[in-house]
Amino acid sequence: MPDEFTRIATHLAPLAGPEGLGLLDDAAILKPQAGRELVLTVDQMLEGIHFLPNDPPDLIARKLLRRNLSDLAAMAATPAGYLLTTALPPNTPESWLEQFAQGLAQDQEEYAIKLFGGDSSSSQTHISLTATFIGHVAPGQALRRNGARPGDLIYVTGTIGDAALGLRARKGELLDPTGYLTQRSLLPSPRINLPLAGIASAAIDVSDGLLQDILHICKASGLAATIQAAQIPTFPEAAAFGETYQEARLTDGDDYELVLAIQPENQTALHAACGDVPVHQIGVFHPGPPTVTVLDISGAPITFSKQGWRHF
Amino acid sequence: MPDEFTRIATHLAPLAGPEGLGLLDDAAILKPQAGRELVLTVDQMLEGIHFLPNDPPDLIARKLLRRNLSDLAAMAATPAGYLLTTALPPNTPESWLEQFAQGLAQDQEEYAIKLFGGDSSSSQTHISLTATFIGHVAPGQALRRNGARPGDLIYVTGTIGDAALGLRARKGELLDPTGYLTQRSLLPSPRINLPLAGIASAAIDVSDGLLQDILHICKASGLAATIQAAQIPTFPEAAAFGETYQEARLTDGDDYELVLAIQPENQTALHAACGDVPVHQIGVFHPGPPTVTVLDISGAPITFSKQGWRHF
Repeated sequence: MPDEFTRIATHLAPLAGPEGLGLLDDAAILKPQAGRELVLTVDQMLEGIHFLPNDPPDLIARKLLRRNLSDLAAMAATPAGYLLTTALPPNTPESWLEQFAQGLAQDQEEYAIKLFGGDSSSSQTHISLTATFIGHVAPGQALRRNGARPGDLIYVTGTIGDAALGLRARKGELLDPTGYLTQRSLLPSPRINLPLAGIASAAIDVSDGLLQDILHICKASGLAATIQAAQIPTFPEAAAFGETYQEARLTDGDDYELVLAIQPENQTALHAACGDVPVHQIGVFHPGPPTVTVLDISGAPITFSKQGWRHF
Repeated sequence: MPDEFTRIATHLAPLAGPEGLGLLDDAAILKPQAGRELVLTVDQMLEGIHFLPNDPPDLIARKLLRRNLSDLAAMAATPAGYLLTTALPPNTPESWLEQFAQGLAQDQEEYAIKLFGGDSSSSQTHISLTATFIGHVAPGQALRRNGARPGDLIYVTGTIGDAALGLRARKGELLDPTGYLTQRSLLPSPRINLPLAGIASAAIDVSDGLLQDILHICKASGLAATIQAAQIPTFPEAAAFGETYQEARLTDGDDYELVLAIQPENQTALHAACGDVPVHQIGVFHPGPPTVTVLDISGAPITFSKQGWRHF
């Protein structure tokens, strides 16, 4: 395998924006756009924890970027670029890095972002990756988790739980004849560039799991939440499993959809802002200790084996 | 062990600056200082690669910060804050994280920096850590690797090779009765805040190894370098080993001293800018293909077993 510097020059330097200085320096130089605030986030992906050893390298790369893009989406920030760290075991084939870089290139094009810099290392046994993203937003316009108010409606984009089923399909635990669920698990579609400032009171992306992520808003905003299980949007292929995987769909995460707190009078504006992106109301924030209660169709609370989700 | 969110709230949230939003959100919000460019860098530290399993957690934390601070020093940037990722095996004791956070707190105070955000995860077997640093610099004043010119003198700060010997002492391969070499390996002192803009033509920090790092400047600047082994500043306790570890001292890195390209007429200004920080001339950049030649006291080139250092 070529040495570290040759690999950087071959595979990563072509991805660098001018901020990256050809990846020849100790750091990147960024000229912040006047009148904008910067939004900074970092996420890691570890082999065996966040991806499976045989996942396609290009999809690992794209998911790494998209998980971070989803964090920017939750703040209503516009992405600009990222720093990358890679730690690869010595026996990692050159083709792995080549395909990984192809995935980066594809999503850089898709999302109009550039590589700003990074760090590469060898690792002992497993691949570990991080991306630090830099986005920007008009001053004071970033969405936060702490802005929800009593009476705000809880909306979600897209469908929830597909990735949880997709992961099980990738492990051979269930059938996914069309490949749709697998695709949702391998390659999420972050909801970036929705003009939600002034419309949503609070936002978060569904990474830890729908209930956990709603609980994050509850804690930050000092509210309780009640949601209706039957109103949680479910893709038909996922709905076909009925309640068999209900807990997994609501607690596994990895959907990278947005949860939004919306004042009732902002619902029309919300639908206009989301355009073709589907949004559905699933519940409401209300006064109370930080708790997420899930009601079944009869109005009775559903208890999950992870009790924490209801009383945390 | 408490769950991830409790651990973040207990150990890391107290370290956050206002940009970190209490570590409750998806990202940090940074208001860039008007009229400054941002300098961004990231470094990782992996158990078994960059630190030993039994190294004190507070020193691992401080070295993680200092390795990044050294990258900012090489660009003559002022540090502001950082994002942190931690991936810890499930059996990591709570006390490890507590001591790690104490190390972060200590160097945050030392270097006037704040935690802006991050990401935490479990890992399978080893600890892996990254820090992404944000610094700032006056427009156009960042030092680069590509600015060296023919005839520029090669200067280094401090002493070179202590960390290479210190690592061997930590592994029990040599004696370090005073602990000085061990200390240099565990806790480098990045040369931040030296006012080198306008004085140095190019700079890099010694992380990969003195010869490799000089070679980085050679490649970026399109020059060759010749250095005198006898002029490389060596701490007395390291000099006592004579030439036994000469190759390790020049190629192992981890010193986090600066290599500077200095026009001859800027030498007085350099010494004034460095104040109490020792700087010594060790060689010169000159026209030629990117190569670093090391001469012994008789003027004969020294050949190292890693041939790459001379002809790369």
